[in-house]
Amino acid sequence: MAADIAEQPDVFRGLLDHGAAEIAKIAAVIAERRPRSVVFTARGTSDHAALYAAYLTEIRLGLPASLASPSVVTVYDARPDWSDSLVIAVSQSGGSPDLAQVVAAARASGALTLAVTNNPDSRLAGEAELHLDVRAGHERAVAATKTYTAELLTLLLLIEGIRTGTGRLEAAEASALDKLPELAQHVLEHSGAAELAGRYRFASRFVTTGRGYAYPTARETALKLMETSYLPSLAFSGADLLHGPLAMTDPGVPVLAVVGSGPGGHAMWNVLTQLGKQRADVVVVGAADVPGQSARLATPAVDERLAALLDILPLQQLSLNLAIERGENPDAPRGLKKVTETV
Amino acid sequence: MAADIAEQPDVFRGLLDHGAAEIAKIAAVIAERRPRSVVFTARGTSDHAALYAAYLTEIRLGLPASLASPSVVTVYDARPDWSDSLVIAVSQSGGSPDLAQVVAAARASGALTLAVTNNPDSRLAGEAELHLDVRAGHERAVAATKTYTAELLTLLLLIEGIRTGTGRLEAAEASALDKLPELAQHVLEHSGAAELAGRYRFASRFVTTGRGYAYPTARETALKLMETSYLPSLAFSGADLLHGPLAMTDPGVPVLAVVGSGPGGHAMWNVLTQLGKQRADVVVVGAADVPGQSARLATPAVDERLAALLDILPLQQLSLNLAIERGENPDAPRGLKKVTETV
Repeated sequence: MAADIAEQPDVFRGLLDHGAAEIAKIAAVIAERRPRSVVFTARGTSDHAALYAAYLTEIRLGLPASLASPSVVTVYDARPDWSDSLVIAVSQSGGSPDLAQVVAAARASGALTLAVTNNPDSRLAGEAELHLDVRAGHERAVAATKTYTAELLTLLLLIEGIRTGTGRLEAAEASALDKLPELAQHVLEHSGAAELAGRYRFASRFVTTGRGYAYPTARETALKLMETSYLPSLAFSGADLLHGPLAMTDPGVPVLAVVGSGPGGHAMWNVLTQLGKQRADVVVVGAADVPGQSARLATPAVDERLAALLDILPLQQLSLNLAIERGENPDAPRGLKKVTETV
Repeated sequence: MAADIAEQPDVFRGLLDHGAAEIAKIAAVIAERRPRSVVFTARGTSDHAALYAAYLTEIRLGLPASLASPSVVTVYDARPDWSDSLVIAVSQSGGSPDLAQVVAAARASGALTLAVTNNPDSRLAGEAELHLDVRAGHERAVAATKTYTAELLTLLLLIEGIRTGTGRLEAAEASALDKLPELAQHVLEHSGAAELAGRYRFASRFVTTGRGYAYPTARETALKLMETSYLPSLAFSGADLLHGPLAMTDPGVPVLAVVGSGPGGHAMWNVLTQLGKQRADVVVVGAADVPGQSARLATPAVDERLAALLDILPLQQLSLNLAIERGENPDAPRGLKKVTETV
């Protein structure tokens, strides 16, 4: 898992240097087909990448986005009319039968279909009209890390390419993205996550939170903590936290709060104030200190779209190191396989 | 909270006898406008009612459904093109500014908008083109119970009315719904939930699970347990549970599994087998015993669309009684207000 985490700057570099042309080509095809909406379907970690892409779709493309529940197709045998939609299935293995079934149903209903996977030879890749390889290389640990961020970057390049219509990025985007591998390397080397793990050795659960583009980061962090340390971890959008679950926070429950430097981060200030009143132990992930924080995992002040690819890095490191501190084996979580087959 | 819970059969009766005509009228208006998709927006408990309605929309109407994140509009100031969509905001109070903003933006973009609330005088009700009153009466406890099931029934009547095109229900539907208040009364009187609460007095957390129409029940149960007993409770669709979080289940973590008598329930059998291998303590909610269960909260074998309105009842009772067993005051959860204002 440590090796997978450490490879992420190289995966970013590889995608930017060798994957971008293919992504641009697919983006141009999609732009020409002018879908009226985008439907994502995914499971587990990939569902968090899909959630990130749903925010991008609505905010950057102005198109309605949704996350389809495979059970509608696979369990209830319904066939929603996705004829004007782009249906994107995201899966590192491409091996879960339910997603392939959703894509087949969508394609039959006239949707434009795209599979985003780390395995071009998978059933899912074959089922969809279009396919994108996230080029993360073989992932050794069961808990997904580099395939997650590779999915994020692939989807970001894709959607920004659809936005311009040509598949190519605007110059400012391209220049910001070019710095991503270096920023990622810096975060991995200086985050302080390994040192922080000891402080939470005896925590019995976590709450994670973020808004907008940072909400998928909160969700993915909770999943990583659960997969590797078996610690119950609840992820809430900052707004949803105020609608009920805030009652649960107290000084005994550490809160991991992703607070970016853009609108989503600013919308967290009210949440942080409320957490302060509950005397919660708050670890902030972001570029600026927050009054009352217990610690901060430092990530750079970049556009929130890019921050989603960087903020998760120290949180992956925290999950890994916490598992080790607790005497668990993060490479082989109990009861899990690398490819989960659900129907 | 106990009084709110006990009133649900009467709320069902009232909606069926006095609310159905208005719902049918609105359903006919919507059917005539022929929306191409349905977008829901909601927070907290109402978000679970919206999730239920999203399954209904895709399965019963064959229309794509999505749950919009208000932050896209309120935080990032984006304006997705919802012009061919029906946008439904669900909120018991109608008082949260973010939902009103989403509805205003949707209306401006040409969407047909509907507010479903328990307060016809609310800002949200005024902002939308159409409004439906869920007629639950004043809810005393902070934790929503009768407003939740009233939202479910209102949305079920609405979507079945859109399905026929006239707003009126098919005869078989109407006849099945007519028995709902009586079935609800029976469940409340015979569920055994109060007796079961003692067994979980010292549980430190819960996992809840269900698939399809039962997944919103799992989500809502987790929220009720968190709001009233401050017990961290993780809700997973049966399929998602197999993608990672299964590692977390062990004999120390009770699992509340909603296992209906239809396709969603059948799709849970694989999940129950896996939970059995993990030696999890499983409480089944449904009409049939499951090998290895610790207990069963008995609910009738009805269509899964109706089961969603009944299966939640013993789980509300369990949440209430568990809070009392633990010495908490379920009527006044710490840190929460009845109307949460998020932006």
